Amino acid sequence: MRPVALLTDFGLSDHYVGVVHAVLEKHAPGVPRIDIDHLVPPGDIWEASFQLRCAWPHLPAGCVVMAVVDPGVGTDRRALALALGRRFLVAPDNGLAASLGPASDVVEIDWRSMGLAEPSRTFQGRDLFAPAAAWLARGEDLTQMGSEVDADILVSCPLPDPEPLTSGYQATVVSVDRFGNLATNLPGSSVDGHVKAAWTSDEVARLVRTYGEAEGDEVVLLEGSAGFLELAVNGGSAAMATGLRRGDSVRITHTDDGGG
Amino acid sequence: MRPVALLTDFGLSDHYVGVVHAVLEKHAPGVPRIDIDHLVPPGDIWEASFQLRCAWPHLPAGCVVMAVVDPGVGTDRRALALALGRRFLVAPDNGLAASLGPASDVVEIDWRSMGLAEPSRTFQGRDLFAPAAAWLARGEDLTQMGSEVDADILVSCPLPDPEPLTSGYQATVVSVDRFGNLATNLPGSSVDGHVKAAWTSDEVARLVRTYGEAEGDEVVLLEGSAGFLELAVNGGSAAMATGLRRGDSVRITHTDDGGG
Amino acid sequence: MRPVALLTDFGLSDHYVGVVHAVLEKHAPGVPRIDIDHLVPPGDIWEASFQLRCAWPHLPAGCVVMAVVDPGVGTDRRALALALGRRFLVAPDNGLAASLGPASDVVEIDWRSMGLAEPSRTFQGRDLFAPAAAWLARGEDLTQMGSEVDADILVSCPLPDPEPLTSGYQATVVSVDRFGNLATNLPGSSVDGHVKAAWTSDEVARLVRTYGEAEGDEVVLLEGSAGFLELAVNGGSAAMATGLRRGDSVRITHTDDGGG
Repeated sequence: MRPVALLTDFGLSDHYVGVVHAVLEKHAPGVPRIDIDHLVPPGDIWEASFQLRCAWPHLPAGCVVMAVVDPGVGTDRRALALALGRRFLVAPDNGLAASLGPASDVVEIDWRSMGLAEPSRTFQGRDLFAPAAAWLARGEDLTQMGSEVDADILVSCPLPDPEPLTSGYQATVVSVDRFGNLATNLPGSSVDGHVKAAWTSDEVARLVRTYGEAEGDEVVLLEGSAGFLELAVNGGSAAMATGLRRGDSVRITHTDDGGG
Repeated sequence: MRPVALLTDFGLSDHYVGVVHAVLEKHAPGVPRIDIDHLVPPGDIWEASFQLRCAWPHLPAGCVVMAVVDPGVGTDRRALALALGRRFLVAPDNGLAASLGPASDVVEIDWRSMGLAEPSRTFQGRDLFAPAAAWLARGEDLTQMGSEVDADILVSCPLPDPEPLTSGYQATVVSVDRFGNLATNLPGSSVDGHVKAAWTSDEVARLVRTYGEAEGDEVVLLEGSAGFLELAVNGGSAAMATGLRRGDSVRITHTDDGGG
Repeated sequence: MRPVALLTDFGLSDHYVGVVHAVLEKHAPGVPRIDIDHLVPPGDIWEASFQLRCAWPHLPAGCVVMAVVDPGVGTDRRALALALGRRFLVAPDNGLAASLGPASDVVEIDWRSMGLAEPSRTFQGRDLFAPAAAWLARGEDLTQMGSEVDADILVSCPLPDPEPLTSGYQATVVSVDRFGNLATNLPGSSVDGHVKAAWTSDEVARLVRTYGEAEGDEVVLLEGSAGFLELAVNGGSAAMATGLRRGDSVRITHTDDGGG
């Protein structure tokens, strides 16, 4: 049995996540279930895309991810199942798949093809995506879940790309975590070890390798655990210290060019 | 091994839910465990009852539900185990069972009958209900858990019923979910497709079938995923838009009678 | 397969906890996983230590606990694995182990000894502690995880001890739970049944055995579910009623000495 991992905006104060787990257990008894995150802000495709990108490389081979942040539930947006490397994704066609790389065997899923009851119009996480994830978890055939579609037609990734500058990048804060760390969209692998970050004309952070290298309440730039450059304060909150929020810009430039 | 599903008001910021999982794993190693909801407001039987009603039909056959919202812990309120169709419930006698329909094989559970240590007076979720749920998960006999009692003596369902009007119902908002949707106690199956909802003399919502049919910030009435009529705003919060809260009244009447 | 229980300050609004679960499932497929608590305030060793002490006796025999509250991530603080009675703990050397009693077979874990990739400097919960917990869950040898160290050198328990008074103890509030119950560091077993609690010169609480014995909004003293004396209000919040917070003092003295 393949494990199933869940990413939704269903929250934790209602029965919604629990019912999805119940449906998985009903359709795939004993399946290992993993909760990636259910506190994605309602309808926030950007945050969901970032969380999924961070978690993806650490999921077990064969893992089936059900990612449902679905402002278009009940409309005619596509419901997808697809293979990405050795893992699977079931999700509405909202850009999440595109953020993970080239997919193979993309299928528009159909409840009739899977022998399901007609899904409700308000909770397809429960009625369509969870049974679809269970289908794949049981090892059944992806291509039998509906009709194949061309990967080129999928909605594109919602996350912005960093913009190249003469000597570096204009990055964007894409996520603020529990600790107040400000993750940008710039991979650490895009820069060498000689960069700094600037968010106003006189506020600059140097690059360090660990939180512990920061001095006192210093705001530092470092490569976060998912490979993206982030602003952080050791034992404190970079969000509080800088006032930056998601969507704000950070200039990450070479230290030898006097920029800032 | 039967799966166990949990519904409590224990919250997620303490060890309480984790310890219940630990006790289940101790008494029923490898048992599939499902969290329905642990953020029921402390002591809120009404909310617990609504969440359980919504989740119940989607739980696997044979599922054992442990529902512990228990303001009376340590007093002489009954502790129950019972069968409801093909599922089981262990819970204090606080009305949750009665909200699910007619029970069979109702037992007042006794720690001595199950060979348990004497439960603490402050955490019977851990000491009594979790071992009782594990007992049933292992497939042991319900009737051996204590002494049978008459289903008629159970505390009645705490949720109010909708009140019939000349041309419709006076419904009550019974739950506000993460998205700000306002669920009422009126099943969608109680009305035909020609109703509207009114909560003040001049605020009226029309009935739609999906969130996507709403125009702009329009408040609409639709049948929610658990079968109850709810007020909703597509991509927004009906709770914010209407100012309604749990316990408030909504008149749901036929559209051809000019009511409102 | 031994079950793994998790205690962290990773929160529930990011992918961090989910990724730890994914790594456990990858390294120990099918392992039973238990979440004790992930809402420990960031870096709060005191709270983590209290939660762990409360949960510990209820964990299954053989359980592997991964407890990661790790302000020193990326510095040269030790990473430990150790046996405590019939259970195991993997954790940074931050005092949590010392709060549980005498450990045996204490090992400073090394990623090389376990054949792991070099851990990141920012997320060792994912890269080091989760694979280490999976190692023990699979039943592999603790002493092969790194180099043995002397239990005497471990960082000592962060929780304060109660201070003896002439006729009782000066206790400290060490945790405030979801219900507003104020847990102190004084075990109920340290006192006989004839004590009272005082937190100002004229505010005194009597000792009761259950929440239900409290009258109206009375603040009472009772032995909580983890064995520590706590202040509570039945159906209300002792934190609100008393204004006490974590770290505040409560004098718990014999009732026959006129103290208070």
